[in-house]
Amino acid sequence: MELGVYTFGEVTGAISPGERVRDLIEEIALADEVGLDVFGVGEHHRPDFAVSSPAVVLAAGAARTERIRLTSAVSVISSDDPVRVFQDFAELDLISGGRAEIMAGRGSFIESFPLFGFDLEDYDDLFAEKLQLLLRIRAGEHVTWSGRHRAPIDGLGVYPRPQQDPIPVWVAVGGNPQSVVRAGVLGLPMALAIIGGQPERFAPFVELHRRAAEEAGHPRLPLSINSHGLIADTSQKAAELAFPAFKAMMDRIGRERGWPPDDPRAVRRLEDPARRGLRGQPAGGRREDPLPARGLRARPRAAAVQRRHAPARRPDALDRALRDRGRPRGARGGGAPHRRDPSPA
Amino acid sequence: MELGVYTFGEVTGAISPGERVRDLIEEIALADEVGLDVFGVGEHHRPDFAVSSPAVVLAAGAARTERIRLTSAVSVISSDDPVRVFQDFAELDLISGGRAEIMAGRGSFIESFPLFGFDLEDYDDLFAEKLQLLLRIRAGEHVTWSGRHRAPIDGLGVYPRPQQDPIPVWVAVGGNPQSVVRAGVLGLPMALAIIGGQPERFAPFVELHRRAAEEAGHPRLPLSINSHGLIADTSQKAAELAFPAFKAMMDRIGRERGWPPDDPRAVRRLEDPARRGLRGQPAGGRREDPLPARGLRARPRAAAVQRRHAPARRPDALDRALRDRGRPRGARGGGAPHRRDPSPA
Repeated sequence: MELGVYTFGEVTGAISPGERVRDLIEEIALADEVGLDVFGVGEHHRPDFAVSSPAVVLAAGAARTERIRLTSAVSVISSDDPVRVFQDFAELDLISGGRAEIMAGRGSFIESFPLFGFDLEDYDDLFAEKLQLLLRIRAGEHVTWSGRHRAPIDGLGVYPRPQQDPIPVWVAVGGNPQSVVRAGVLGLPMALAIIGGQPERFAPFVELHRRAAEEAGHPRLPLSINSHGLIADTSQKAAELAFPAFKAMMDRIGRERGWPPDDPRAVRRLEDPARRGLRGQPAGGRREDPLPARGLRARPRAAAVQRRHAPARRPDALDRALRDRGRPRGARGGGAPHRRDPSPA
Repeated sequence: MELGVYTFGEVTGAISPGERVRDLIEEIALADEVGLDVFGVGEHHRPDFAVSSPAVVLAAGAARTERIRLTSAVSVISSDDPVRVFQDFAELDLISGGRAEIMAGRGSFIESFPLFGFDLEDYDDLFAEKLQLLLRIRAGEHVTWSGRHRAPIDGLGVYPRPQQDPIPVWVAVGGNPQSVVRAGVLGLPMALAIIGGQPERFAPFVELHRRAAEEAGHPRLPLSINSHGLIADTSQKAAELAFPAFKAMMDRIGRERGWPPDDPRAVRRLEDPARRGLRGQPAGGRREDPLPARGLRARPRAAAVQRRHAPARRPDALDRALRDRGRPRGARGGGAPHRRDPSPA
């Protein structure tokens, strides 16, 4: 089992994109310091997110860290060139001494498609074809490939090569069974987004991924689950801290997607203690369980030994590190959309 | 006047691409520490160069530095998407607090053209069109553009925006008068490569750039000159240190380009003391003048005040910093192709 944080570098409230990105790099450094296993950064092409080039931000993080793994979350390969994506993350892998991962996704937002000249009609075909090219590049230095959505490559080399061979490629899945099966058949680990809804509803996807991999002759594959999260002393406190930014984001996206303002889906999630956390927490947990951090990764025992694990840390290391940095604990969110306190002290 | 170092991250001798890239980041940190003004990293798509994504490497450098400016040298925009190039360097600009620059070039090597599906027949047209798009994106958030070599953009936003407005865009020129005039007419600073030949032969290009800018109504523009260099106590020592790697590189590239082995052009350059340095050094200089470092930038006085200059450093800071890092002075090249000493100590 590994634990990590993913962020989209959301820009909410009175913070500039530059401050947000520089804070983000501090968050990566802190995550490494307290012993988290993985840090992920997403790709967006909108003014309300500060990161369109995850590898560039992660490279700055690599220079500040020693052990934590660094991944996109996600790279929207459908509207990118898999050669560039591979090169960026190979470079990151060299810089970080073999700690880079690529999480390939189809994207939840659609701005990148018209911006890079792709047709949303090809949404799934673009992803399938580009994932195939990415894997082809990963498999060997010289690539021969042709497809519908990118110029063919005739035996050319792609450089630099990453330090890890192979560099991990995950497939991010929202809730599309076809994507789940594709990941399993290709023998790729799956990053399952549980952004809304009851976690137990997603169990069939895990089963489907496992079965598809098994039928294609692959060994049992790693799995990660990814949910909103913000850690505080109690779930009540976490909900209070997270709610304003979470509501603002849901309302903003809801307007674009035709949800009503104050959408009960967004509001109730944080108002109802029973819906604040993932299920399956220890039965002896406190009544007010802290919210889980984003990016819990469960790995089968067989795969786990292939990875170097971070040394165990004392649980109070996080508190100490946060105190040393002179910031209140609640003011540093994990992967959750967080904002600086807008009220004067 | 500013002084800096550019490197292509060449991989020569018994060094892996990962070691080379990690050394490169140490070099950026050292360059900042000793007070150099700018560090540049080139883009190549060959096994003998470790960097195809300059922005990713520079971002790691940004996290280790405080004042030095960080530039590509060059970004081969002809075979790239200007939207991605802009986004990568905008991200770098946010990370570094406004220290990023883009140096756009047509590229001296040609591997990237077939790799990304472009035709060498369009060599100059690709550059002209993509430079125009890059400048359009730089000029404002929402872009409307159409051309021959990239999908049109219809009023879409490009994010994130850089901290600097505008983020500097230089045009790199090898010796093509058309490129020189284009840079001048567009009001862009020129980075002039003086890789071979007598420096005074390049003076007409400077004059041409100045005149083109003047006629187009632009103020006097910054200029940089870029030559091979390696600093040692004497030019003799520098030549001895640089020669093996320099010769190996020239022979390798010469084979590809049809030069004879032991090409007198490469050999004589370092053998003849009169050809070791740039002209115009102080008349009172030692008979054995040290070679100049790569990347001397001359700026007109009017432009110089627009830039924050690094505080003056004592000249022995470099020695001290190098000694502190436990490496012999000669083993750390600047921008010159350098190799680790292959003979056992």
